[in-house]
Amino acid sequence: MTDALWHRQTFVEKLHAVGGRAYHDKHPFHLAMNEGLLSPEAVRGWVANRFYYQRNIPLKDAAILSNCPVLDVRRIWIHRILDHDGTGTRRGDLQSAQSTEISAAGKPRLINEGGIEAWMRLGEACGLSRADVIEDRHLVPGVRFAVDAYVNFARAQPWPIAIASSLTELFAPDLMSARLAAFERFYSWIDAPGLDYFRRRVTQARRDSDEALEITLEYCNTPELQREAVRALEFKCDVLWAMLDAIHHAYPGSETAAPR
Amino acid sequence: MTDALWHRQTFVEKLHAVGGRAYHDKHPFHLAMNEGLLSPEAVRGWVANRFYYQRNIPLKDAAILSNCPVLDVRRIWIHRILDHDGTGTRRGDLQSAQSTEISAAGKPRLINEGGIEAWMRLGEACGLSRADVIEDRHLVPGVRFAVDAYVNFARAQPWPIAIASSLTELFAPDLMSARLAAFERFYSWIDAPGLDYFRRRVTQARRDSDEALEITLEYCNTPELQREAVRALEFKCDVLWAMLDAIHHAYPGSETAAPR
Repeated sequence: MTDALWHRQTFVEKLHAVGGRAYHDKHPFHLAMNEGLLSPEAVRGWVANRFYYQRNIPLKDAAILSNCPVLDVRRIWIHRILDHDGTGTRRGDLQSAQSTEISAAGKPRLINEGGIEAWMRLGEACGLSRADVIEDRHLVPGVRFAVDAYVNFARAQPWPIAIASSLTELFAPDLMSARLAAFERFYSWIDAPGLDYFRRRVTQARRDSDEALEITLEYCNTPELQREAVRALEFKCDVLWAMLDAIHHAYPGSETAAPR
Repeated sequence: MTDALWHRQTFVEKLHAVGGRAYHDKHPFHLAMNEGLLSPEAVRGWVANRFYYQRNIPLKDAAILSNCPVLDVRRIWIHRILDHDGTGTRRGDLQSAQSTEISAAGKPRLINEGGIEAWMRLGEACGLSRADVIEDRHLVPGVRFAVDAYVNFARAQPWPIAIASSLTELFAPDLMSARLAAFERFYSWIDAPGLDYFRRRVTQARRDSDEALEITLEYCNTPELQREAVRALEFKCDVLWAMLDAIHHAYPGSETAAPR
């Protein structure tokens, strides 16, 4: 007896169910973070380690581009790299894509600085130097291994499966909103503009996951690919979870100050 | 005795010398093409086969992106993918980057259709159907092998070496200008707008090669990397030459109609 092709709605539900049981919002470290129980040192450690993930995301997305012969999919996917890397100021043809938004501090800011730079500013707002962050001075091995595994997955797997692995974004907007509220409430020692990354990702993650879900539903179109897509999303949840395990071990007891 | 680091000017001269001896503008098929000696069938064969190169260029460039941890380099390099794939019309944030130019036919055209689509229009202007081109119906094995070797090179080599391999663009503007003039003169059965790809590449190739040369000079910064860069450019010349060998064999005698 072979597996049957899932109907679209069933497939979507299977994907959402992965988040329900395995997304890292349920990790003890993440729960502690959103409950305001982290020391400043632990917050800094999380930010510095998570930067390694951020800096590798464009490499992961470029690997997907490089494996994808479908032009229409590439036209959609490339925006992720532009969003993360920013567009810089060197060339004229993309400068018209620049526009301004009002940051939490009320100052207009170019939106094309990119997510990596925004995360860097979060690090600085937490008290990390740019050198601390860029040179991975606080990076723990388990985080490096997990992130590298994710990039290698995107390089080695068929591109629709690699795209399916990105679907943790389905669960990200809620997490980002909760995290933003928690940081504003519990970690007010971090300047508000430092939280711009979280603000922008609420919107971006929703748009990105809509696109990734559509591509997954269209191109993971055999019973085998559907199941592979679910496993890819489980793998990605494992990556995020293992990162928090490693960070948690590096900052033990950071959440014990105020047990419930 | 170990090799010494070349001075910048010497390195540039070594790179240019590769084009002088190995660039495909000197291939018999290319000479015949620019002398107006190709039959319509041979022109179509060249266009259809060369499309396989065009369609793979973004995958090659994405492989370089995926291997490059330097954000500033990625911000430069990603424009190549946008130039080739075009930006489409789906998302709002890049639509402001659209502008119009006047095509040879006097009609305004969105410049963001991308190089692949422009080449497709060349194919149609030559009498190929889109299906002929998209489905690689005229693709000969030697062209496939050469192009695939180029993409694999970009995936496997250190990114500065892969970038150096793209420096055939140093020699492209002259070739594009000569090719454009030859097509307008000898192959006037091809509608002028079909030649837009050549027109745009005169400018793009100059800008692209300026950028690629700067990156090569900066990052191929050891004696070993400098020599490797020269070999990479020789390899790329081999790719282009082998493509023409294969096309020439598929359309034998196409240049014998009017021997000089």
